[in-house]
Amino acid sequence: MLPRGRPRALGAAALLLLLLLIGFFLFGGDLECKRGERGGERRGPGPLPLPCPLTPRVPPDERPRGAAALDGDLPADRGGHNHSDCVPPRPRPLPPKCELLHVAIVCAGHNSSRDLNTLVKSVLFYRKNPLHFHLVTDAVARNILEMLFHTWMVPAVGVSFYDLEELKAGALALLHFPAVCSPVLPPRALGWGHGGEVRAAWDPSPPQSHHTYRSSNPSPLLEPTPSFPCVTECPHKQVIGLVENQSDWYLGNIWRNHRPWPALGRGFNTGVILLRLDRLRQAGWGQLWKLTATRELLTLPATSLADQDIFNAVIKEHPDLVQPLPCVWNVQLSDHTRAERCYSEASDLKVIHWNSPKKLRVKNKHVEYFRNLYLTFLEYDGNLLRRELFGCPSPPPSGAEQVQRALAQLDEEDACFEFRQQRLTVHRVHISFLPHELPPPRPHDVTLVAQLSMDRLQMLEALCRHWPGPMSLALYLTDAEAQQFLHFVEASAVLSARQDVAYHVVYREGPLYPVNQLRNVALAQALTPYVFLSDIDFLPAYSLYDYLRTSIEQLKLGSKRKAALVVPAFETLHYRFSFPTSKAELLALLDSGSVYTFRYHEWPRGHAPTDYARWREAQTPYRVQWAADYEPYVVVPRDCPRYDPRFVGFGWNKVAHIMELDAQEYELLVLPEAFAIHLPHAPSLDISRFRSSPTYRDCLQALKDEFHQDLSRNYGAAALKYLTALQQPRGPA
Amino acid sequence: MLPRGRPRALGAAALLLLLLLIGFFLFGGDLECKRGERGGERRGPGPLPLPCPLTPRVPPDERPRGAAALDGDLPADRGGHNHSDCVPPRPRPLPPKCELLHVAIVCAGHNSSRDLNTLVKSVLFYRKNPLHFHLVTDAVARNILEMLFHTWMVPAVGVSFYDLEELKAGALALLHFPAVCSPVLPPRALGWGHGGEVRAAWDPSPPQSHHTYRSSNPSPLLEPTPSFPCVTECPHKQVIGLVENQSDWYLGNIWRNHRPWPALGRGFNTGVILLRLDRLRQAGWGQLWKLTATRELLTLPATSLADQDIFNAVIKEHPDLVQPLPCVWNVQLSDHTRAERCYSEASDLKVIHWNSPKKLRVKNKHVEYFRNLYLTFLEYDGNLLRRELFGCPSPPPSGAEQVQRALAQLDEEDACFEFRQQRLTVHRVHISFLPHELPPPRPHDVTLVAQLSMDRLQMLEALCRHWPGPMSLALYLTDAEAQQFLHFVEASAVLSARQDVAYHVVYREGPLYPVNQLRNVALAQALTPYVFLSDIDFLPAYSLYDYLRTSIEQLKLGSKRKAALVVPAFETLHYRFSFPTSKAELLALLDSGSVYTFRYHEWPRGHAPTDYARWREAQTPYRVQWAADYEPYVVVPRDCPRYDPRFVGFGWNKVAHIMELDAQEYELLVLPEAFAIHLPHAPSLDISRFRSSPTYRDCLQALKDEFHQDLSRNYGAAALKYLTALQQPRGPA
Repeated sequence: MLPRGRPRALGAAALLLLLLLIGFFLFGGDLECKRGERGGERRGPGPLPLPCPLTPRVPPDERPRGAAALDGDLPADRGGHNHSDCVPPRPRPLPPKCELLHVAIVCAGHNSSRDLNTLVKSVLFYRKNPLHFHLVTDAVARNILEMLFHTWMVPAVGVSFYDLEELKAGALALLHFPAVCSPVLPPRALGWGHGGEVRAAWDPSPPQSHHTYRSSNPSPLLEPTPSFPCVTECPHKQVIGLVENQSDWYLGNIWRNHRPWPALGRGFNTGVILLRLDRLRQAGWGQLWKLTATRELLTLPATSLADQDIFNAVIKEHPDLVQPLPCVWNVQLSDHTRAERCYSEASDLKVIHWNSPKKLRVKNKHVEYFRNLYLTFLEYDGNLLRRELFGCPSPPPSGAEQVQRALAQLDEEDACFEFRQQRLTVHRVHISFLPHELPPPRPHDVTLVAQLSMDRLQMLEALCRHWPGPMSLALYLTDAEAQQFLHFVEASAVLSARQDVAYHVVYREGPLYPVNQLRNVALAQALTPYVFLSDIDFLPAYSLYDYLRTSIEQLKLGSKRKAALVVPAFETLHYRFSFPTSKAELLALLDSGSVYTFRYHEWPRGHAPTDYARWREAQTPYRVQWAADYEPYVVVPRDCPRYDPRFVGFGWNKVAHIMELDAQEYELLVLPEAFAIHLPHAPSLDISRFRSSPTYRDCLQALKDEFHQDLSRNYGAAALKYLTALQQPRGPA
Repeated sequence: MLPRGRPRALGAAALLLLLLLIGFFLFGGDLECKRGERGGERRGPGPLPLPCPLTPRVPPDERPRGAAALDGDLPADRGGHNHSDCVPPRPRPLPPKCELLHVAIVCAGHNSSRDLNTLVKSVLFYRKNPLHFHLVTDAVARNILEMLFHTWMVPAVGVSFYDLEELKAGALALLHFPAVCSPVLPPRALGWGHGGEVRAAWDPSPPQSHHTYRSSNPSPLLEPTPSFPCVTECPHKQVIGLVENQSDWYLGNIWRNHRPWPALGRGFNTGVILLRLDRLRQAGWGQLWKLTATRELLTLPATSLADQDIFNAVIKEHPDLVQPLPCVWNVQLSDHTRAERCYSEASDLKVIHWNSPKKLRVKNKHVEYFRNLYLTFLEYDGNLLRRELFGCPSPPPSGAEQVQRALAQLDEEDACFEFRQQRLTVHRVHISFLPHELPPPRPHDVTLVAQLSMDRLQMLEALCRHWPGPMSLALYLTDAEAQQFLHFVEASAVLSARQDVAYHVVYREGPLYPVNQLRNVALAQALTPYVFLSDIDFLPAYSLYDYLRTSIEQLKLGSKRKAALVVPAFETLHYRFSFPTSKAELLALLDSGSVYTFRYHEWPRGHAPTDYARWREAQTPYRVQWAADYEPYVVVPRDCPRYDPRFVGFGWNKVAHIMELDAQEYELLVLPEAFAIHLPHAPSLDISRFRSSPTYRDCLQALKDEFHQDLSRNYGAAALKYLTALQQPRGPA
């Protein structure tokens, strides 16, 4: 984990995730459950059926029956690990086809949002049913996850959000969990989270205890399941499905004077919980757990394992509430885990629960297998999960229909098809990929806004050295590259130290670099009143951040004056380069030929209106006029116009934006002490792919024409000058 | 596909892959197969059992019974698509745990080897059993695949190779297929290729027909299967398991006068074949198909669909040979496919068969789902499949034990643990990732050898322009990056045009760049008598290739003279750079400060012994003496010493190699007209990660010390001078 800020209000828990597998008990009468031992009837290696008890599964020694099985040797047949007493007589597994399944997960903070992403990817990979995720989040995670799911657009997946703080206020009051009370949920809709990686830790503190650190669980995983515990003939009272603990914690022998909260034997692990909510309500659960917790707190210290302690205390008192689940539904990979007795082959596994603080470095007989599965989903391209469920009609995700319609209207034979398709692509967006702090409210603060892909990562350190203020950066990455990026930041002292840089991952899809979509993502996430719209290959003058804030204040930018402040752009062709520390030094380098005005050799029109000659001498900001192809780097209020997303790949992306600023009557004011210098770099892969293509130039022209038409539509006669400017002879864009 | 060379001897088939699912019929008596309709006994949505017939499944209208089901509407229950008449009464699916399953695949040429890689990844992802692959290959594919599997080191996976030419000589003589005759295979060992993506097309021509183009099949895929066709009570005669064709080809109505080979109704698709080999032999298959083929060829033109035509002609005559399989085992995604009637949800699917020439661009109701699954495995990190099968003891893959032992001996607390671990990592290697032609045998030819990762791809075009001769390049990539690389080459006219550049993909694993392992891979694959050991950031003089060949000949390098020819190295710090076309031009640039001798500012020791002052004036090659830290770029015979793989990351990797050359008494001869120039680039991610780490420098020192010790061990007193040189003051390495 990065040593970055995290709201203390959330406690020390790095990761607050709860998978509530709600409503296992709400399943109807279509599952057969036969009583009595039937193992003897079977031949071959299939899973053993286990009896369905009518009485609580707690033998006189107060340990759940499954515990005995764990203590003994693993039987030769595959059923021995299955220590629930209640499974169907033959694999009759799936909930009815197309039935909506509900999964609740608690998630708080930046890092958890990444983990949730991995979790959800594995769920979606294995699922066979429509899903509804009920996400209990803090404000940080909600912000991130709303955007993630909104842009993911997975068919047959719904999401609802609930406020973690509210839930904590009614701590453990599961019955007040809004999702569950909502009348819109069909009565039989709550079921196993079928297929899916599960991460589990739950931290809402009961009122009289301090809530305690609960280890994060980076990557459990669920295989598709052909088996499903029977429930119909199980006793009415069993309302909570849980897997037994696979550690010795509740046996109280971990250290001298170790005094855990009370539990039946090994106790149960609340990483994966199956709740029969209607009956929990009937049983008065809200009172039940509070009474127990209050009483235990008279003699015991605060909970060590948060909700898990309380669940276990309640269950110890009311053992008939619990339905033990087969341990494969919560394979706990702690350090001294007994998990490996629970499965005999990979296909037995349902949910893998990394409940050790050591996470992937935990020692375990099969940890490499588990780690590989985890990495599979960590790096899995989430775009590939935007696939429909065959034969389960479901409304398209919000916005998807519109996109589909627009895509369907495209002509595949159109030479610019790829461009138009790319423009319509909705990229999955993971904003605030790494923890960062909100900038303090400062009226003239300015955020550097830029975008990049993997081949520019090495610019980040230098950029951090040159710009001490907030940054909002959009990164165009695959899921696997996002992990490389994470490692890159972790390995960099410079980057790790910064708390004011927000990284927003836009997941790659399609052949063209969606430069303006990326800029818009970064721009939308900038949280200061002003933004410096830059490019990743530019290093600002060391003083620029301070100078801009002063200038903004002095010029009353935004409040009194609708203006864009121009930061003059230069370039060096030198690989090793000593950055000028003042305007005077810059001018000396310019005179010596070490530095040029930006694109001086290839495309001087792009910055000519900045009037570098005047800038040399200028002592105060001066106004310049827009001219065709002008594309300066500017500072504007953050409510400035967005970039036009039709410009994908390279060319004309900034030009169109400046034109729009001009059309909206932003003054263009050049700042006399501001400058930024472009560093040399090899051409990006994205650019080299299209530079040589004549189609590319033709399409760019077509897009320009369409942009001009839109401009005329929006700004009327005022936009005429842009068309006139178009008639002039022009060079490369 | 790239327009690169491909041996014509293999015919026009881009991809010759056959999955023979051998021995379905060899399964023993542990599968129950009940006769009669049992569907009525079941409730709920599980798969419907189908009856097991005792008679051939060909109704009087000569269409297999399954065809009727395909014509009708899909029944509401899930079993309706399952148009084999023979499946077990309940899902009793898997072969016995840990039973070895055999899968045969035909694969020829470079491109097929990539497809096979994808196929095998999906097989390994889903498999639950030990596997043995029987690969029928041409020399090209064998070379590639032997290396791939050797370096993949997947537990519980065996591989055997068979010569495609030999098989073609005995065309269709499956009974002569050596794997099958081999007595080492246990009698019940041949089974469904359980789990696995399948690609199918088979091209061995029957003797009297010309063999015909058979479309390649880029990416079928197999889901894990809970169901398994019963066989035990099926008639003795059924020896070939096949899925019905899902196109109208054999109905003879594709075009006017379309005259397909004879078939039962729609005929069967031979993309996936299950063979009961012992009974095929007993039935005299070798004669049977030859008789049929010979007779049909009297009246029919050559086969259109190769083996599939012949299989169908034989089956038409002997319908009792065939066992129709459920269509989900060969879901054919051709253009007018009837496949979608065959499954009702994703979990029904077993094998996806891209048998349209349009491949991924085929139009199909669910093609996006299938394409996403294909892409999943295309980009899947194959390293993650090096996982053991729980509870199936199997001998470790060849070499793995030794690596495991060495890794186990490493001390995790050692500061250099990462370095030592990286050095021991066996990287999966896919040599000849793209088609290329072998260099013609020329006695003085020289191959440029270099290595790179993704961030240097943009060097390739320039390199191709500067070096018109053969190249052997090792690329350090993830599986997903390998696909990006493929697209990059396809999009480049310069790269696509070259037939003499061999790209060898070394799959990424671990945090450090294994520079010397990469060099060794590229070096081992160089096929000319001489190699130019270069780095990817250098552009050789335009004339260098010709000049080197002349020099090699004149100096009698290798034969008479044990020498390394030094190519003097220069660098430019300029981003835009006009490359000198002669030594005179180079010297002018040097004098003007546009070019420097390589690392002149940071580390002149590395090239000082080249004696640039002498080189300016030199007209003939001159000998120089080794000195500490010398690391010139050299031309040597390809049997030169390998690079020391202990040097991972950056630093000292070439120095050690030159030292070894010197220890082996190679003369160092500087060529007066040779030069190469290093282009500027941003520091690679790999280097920036470690540059700042003090541990990195300490470890490099430790590795150097160990290298020196080994040098002394190997070369005795002669190596003393290297130790002495070590004592001198030194700068950065």
